[in-house]
Amino acid sequence: METSTKPDPVTFARRPETYNHWKLSIEGSLARLVMTVQEDKPLRPGYRLKLNSYDLGVDIELYDAVQRLRFEHPEVRCVVVTGANDRVFCAGANINMLAGSSHAFKVNFCKFTNETRLGIEDASANSGQRYLAALNGVCAGGGYELALACDEIVLVDDGNSAVSLPEVPLLGVLPGTGGLTRLVDKRKVRRDLADMFCTVAEGVKGKRAVAWNLVDEVATKSRFAEAVDRRARALCAASPARSTQGVVLTPLEAKHEADTVRWKHVTLSIERDKRVATLTVHGPEANLPGDAAGLRALGAAWWPLQAFRELDEALLTLRHNEEEIGLVLLRTAGDVDAVLALDRTLEANAGDWFVDEVRLFIARTLRRLDLTARSFYALIEPGSCFAGTLFELALAADRSYMLYDKDRPASIGISRMNGGAYPMSHGMTRLQVRYLGEPDRAHEILDEPRVYDPTDAEEAGLVTVVADEIDYADEVRVAVEERVSLSPDALTGLEANLRFPGTENGDSKIFARLSAWQNWIFQRPNAVGERGALTLYGKPERPAFDFRRT
Amino acid sequence: METSTKPDPVTFARRPETYNHWKLSIEGSLARLVMTVQEDKPLRPGYRLKLNSYDLGVDIELYDAVQRLRFEHPEVRCVVVTGANDRVFCAGANINMLAGSSHAFKVNFCKFTNETRLGIEDASANSGQRYLAALNGVCAGGGYELALACDEIVLVDDGNSAVSLPEVPLLGVLPGTGGLTRLVDKRKVRRDLADMFCTVAEGVKGKRAVAWNLVDEVATKSRFAEAVDRRARALCAASPARSTQGVVLTPLEAKHEADTVRWKHVTLSIERDKRVATLTVHGPEANLPGDAAGLRALGAAWWPLQAFRELDEALLTLRHNEEEIGLVLLRTAGDVDAVLALDRTLEANAGDWFVDEVRLFIARTLRRLDLTARSFYALIEPGSCFAGTLFELALAADRSYMLYDKDRPASIGISRMNGGAYPMSHGMTRLQVRYLGEPDRAHEILDEPRVYDPTDAEEAGLVTVVADEIDYADEVRVAVEERVSLSPDALTGLEANLRFPGTENGDSKIFARLSAWQNWIFQRPNAVGERGALTLYGKPERPAFDFRRT
Repeated sequence: METSTKPDPVTFARRPETYNHWKLSIEGSLARLVMTVQEDKPLRPGYRLKLNSYDLGVDIELYDAVQRLRFEHPEVRCVVVTGANDRVFCAGANINMLAGSSHAFKVNFCKFTNETRLGIEDASANSGQRYLAALNGVCAGGGYELALACDEIVLVDDGNSAVSLPEVPLLGVLPGTGGLTRLVDKRKVRRDLADMFCTVAEGVKGKRAVAWNLVDEVATKSRFAEAVDRRARALCAASPARSTQGVVLTPLEAKHEADTVRWKHVTLSIERDKRVATLTVHGPEANLPGDAAGLRALGAAWWPLQAFRELDEALLTLRHNEEEIGLVLLRTAGDVDAVLALDRTLEANAGDWFVDEVRLFIARTLRRLDLTARSFYALIEPGSCFAGTLFELALAADRSYMLYDKDRPASIGISRMNGGAYPMSHGMTRLQVRYLGEPDRAHEILDEPRVYDPTDAEEAGLVTVVADEIDYADEVRVAVEERVSLSPDALTGLEANLRFPGTENGDSKIFARLSAWQNWIFQRPNAVGERGALTLYGKPERPAFDFRRT
Repeated sequence: METSTKPDPVTFARRPETYNHWKLSIEGSLARLVMTVQEDKPLRPGYRLKLNSYDLGVDIELYDAVQRLRFEHPEVRCVVVTGANDRVFCAGANINMLAGSSHAFKVNFCKFTNETRLGIEDASANSGQRYLAALNGVCAGGGYELALACDEIVLVDDGNSAVSLPEVPLLGVLPGTGGLTRLVDKRKVRRDLADMFCTVAEGVKGKRAVAWNLVDEVATKSRFAEAVDRRARALCAASPARSTQGVVLTPLEAKHEADTVRWKHVTLSIERDKRVATLTVHGPEANLPGDAAGLRALGAAWWPLQAFRELDEALLTLRHNEEEIGLVLLRTAGDVDAVLALDRTLEANAGDWFVDEVRLFIARTLRRLDLTARSFYALIEPGSCFAGTLFELALAADRSYMLYDKDRPASIGISRMNGGAYPMSHGMTRLQVRYLGEPDRAHEILDEPRVYDPTDAEEAGLVTVVADEIDYADEVRVAVEERVSLSPDALTGLEANLRFPGTENGDSKIFARLSAWQNWIFQRPNAVGERGALTLYGKPERPAFDFRRT
């Protein structure tokens, strides 16, 4: 059922002036993000985006808008998300798009939409940009999941508009964009009421929607604008003011050569025959400015922002356009001391809105890496600069290999930025995860940030394998060949398990309990078979289920 | 690929005297549980249980042994698990069995083995019966996962014997019986070392196995018995003595009629055409003994032990033998006050080893219900006795319906046993989960245990739906018909998500992150397709993978 003709690559660069599906406007501390999906502009041909339903293209614009609000509009303290259609806020993810997509596309689409919604919650929690969902009409499926990612939800009370998660009864799949988790973990809807809600296709409206805590308020059509305005003003008032002068996210420039994409600081090289990619991050120059004003003057060109925006785009490119690449070799090139100097700047300027935003963006990008279903090996060699912030790449990798060459010493570095600046989805730092069995050791390493040579690094347990120049190349070659020979599905499951030791929270449950079950269902004939519910949605035939429970 | 011929039903009653695959012996405070799998006695024909590999039949005996050790041998403080074969401790789950099983069978097999291993850890944590894995030879896959469930692991150091998780490299599936979670969460093996370990088919042996914390000790053949003995004695010495007089788990008696199984206190009725089962628990008589000696004299006939053993068997029967039953109606019959009196006995005698064991068994059975992939509705009607311990059934259900009949009042009851006696897999109580958004309310309800009429129950939020005699029957009928019409896969995913709000721990991660991914992989052509790795294991052909990463 899956086609193997290669579709056009997905691109991720967007600008508000040319959004197809959203209108972003700013009035002082208030932003309005209006969903106005153009049904004849799907990302790929084959379906129409009716009733403000969305596809990956709509969500890439939303992702862009959420990022720009944080960097370009720090004065914004509340974002009202609403719809331009008269009776429908959003019909959710487009079903025809889902039914016609490959399994891998569906899974990566859901992952990206999940990350974008977590990004909204991250903006609320860490940047004081609170989100208000102003549901001006019917709000179904992924539309309601978007609302659930907002801080507050107001629903119009017009006798017709309901919130709903009709995936189970209508499509035989889950509300997979965090909906189930946010219902019971975030909004703390009672689980039996959540069960009722998720099995009733028409959803819940009016007072019952408030009583069950599915929304915070309902307001009649004539009072809707006032209710939204009142809540938006209250959210603004409760959120501290930041700067009035933002930093523009200038376009990233990438050169596409045969099998290589070169951004300024990041290079992605693909060896398709080997199913291996190499992702190289070039470290910062020495002597960058150390004061907040100087950094803001650099703006989007400041190394950590530019490098991690490029890394983000590279990871998304890998996920969506290079499905067969199984292993990514992570490399860095540059000066360890320059990275450590940069980390001191990040640390010294903590509290400055722009520096904080850059740090939070790095954290999100690293979480995107943790959640990428590809194997990662970090290769630590002479000339590399896996230090501090960039050492997080090695900590995120499934393994790290370090060359011990006594003539050309390689080194790694720990900085205070490894101590909590970049939490994983489940809230732990990568250093905590690494030393789950020896928490004191993590403290010791953090308490004395320093540079480690290969012998020190091995002894401290900071790298997986140290090998000398006689063995290193062979060891890496064999490890690469072995990795790419293994079942890609088994590796996806293995990595998703081993990368997240420790207690899980709501964020990580979205990718664990919820997404893993959704991916399972996305494979089941009851959803995607010839007579499956997803396949037959909108067609006259009724689905035929194999009723064996599993 | 899945056959629909109906196999013989699985039975769960076992006795040590007639075990096929294990030898259980007791010497004072030490028990030895020796795996000696008879290869010509598989549960179902079609494969041979070579090299101490196991199937569900082997695991049902293990489950029986673990229960009997707790009830019949409270004097045991350490259980040594070892193998009778010379060079192989255990080769893991039988691959030919797995490759030839339906998806539902594989999933339910893994779930049962997971529950049994969690039961071992429960015996260690709560009954002072510590488990020592004495690995006298090669220990692969599920064999090592069994060892991981033990408190300590000793591995023979004979130059050949290794521990291994070869599922990913050899079979294209995960070590799905808790192995990945226990590696990093329980034994806290560093995640990059765990990654190396899980991709090397031959495993790790000798000093490296100790250095990576895969085992606690290695001992040469000549010193192996002494090392095991020394550790077993130390475990015994560190665990407090309990009673020397156990309670025998007498056989359960069940009458099988057409579509009904009747145990003494539990009845399971199947309506196959409707895909609905009714599970009725008959409550205790009034005036049961209230002192520990009297209860021990009743032994296995004491109502809570007998009723929950029967419920356990009924749940297992449903899971393994009634795959198409999608919805279970939970009913109780009896006297609310008698259940509350029983709960006072359970509470007053806390600390008595036998009463504690009964409570822990109830807790495990309720967790089995939480983890059963069927919908549950509790029906609370006149003559029912959903109170205290039995109210946990209603709390565990996806929904509860209560009849308001003013002439024949139905009631429910809260006791202190709803306050922590029966934690769910993720450590929360069902009352905490119900009131996640109103924790104060959970405290209020617990602080004043009492009986609730329908009006009180609805107002307190203790039931989902209250309906009067005019509406009740119709409301339930419609809810039942709707439920069984929905996609069974979507319901499995929905329920697995909504039943476990709150933070996840290692135990619950086994069923969430790990099992959900394993179930996904068990559907993937790379594992179970014609050229999948699981399908082709042991055959001359090499698997052919679709290398698109998902």
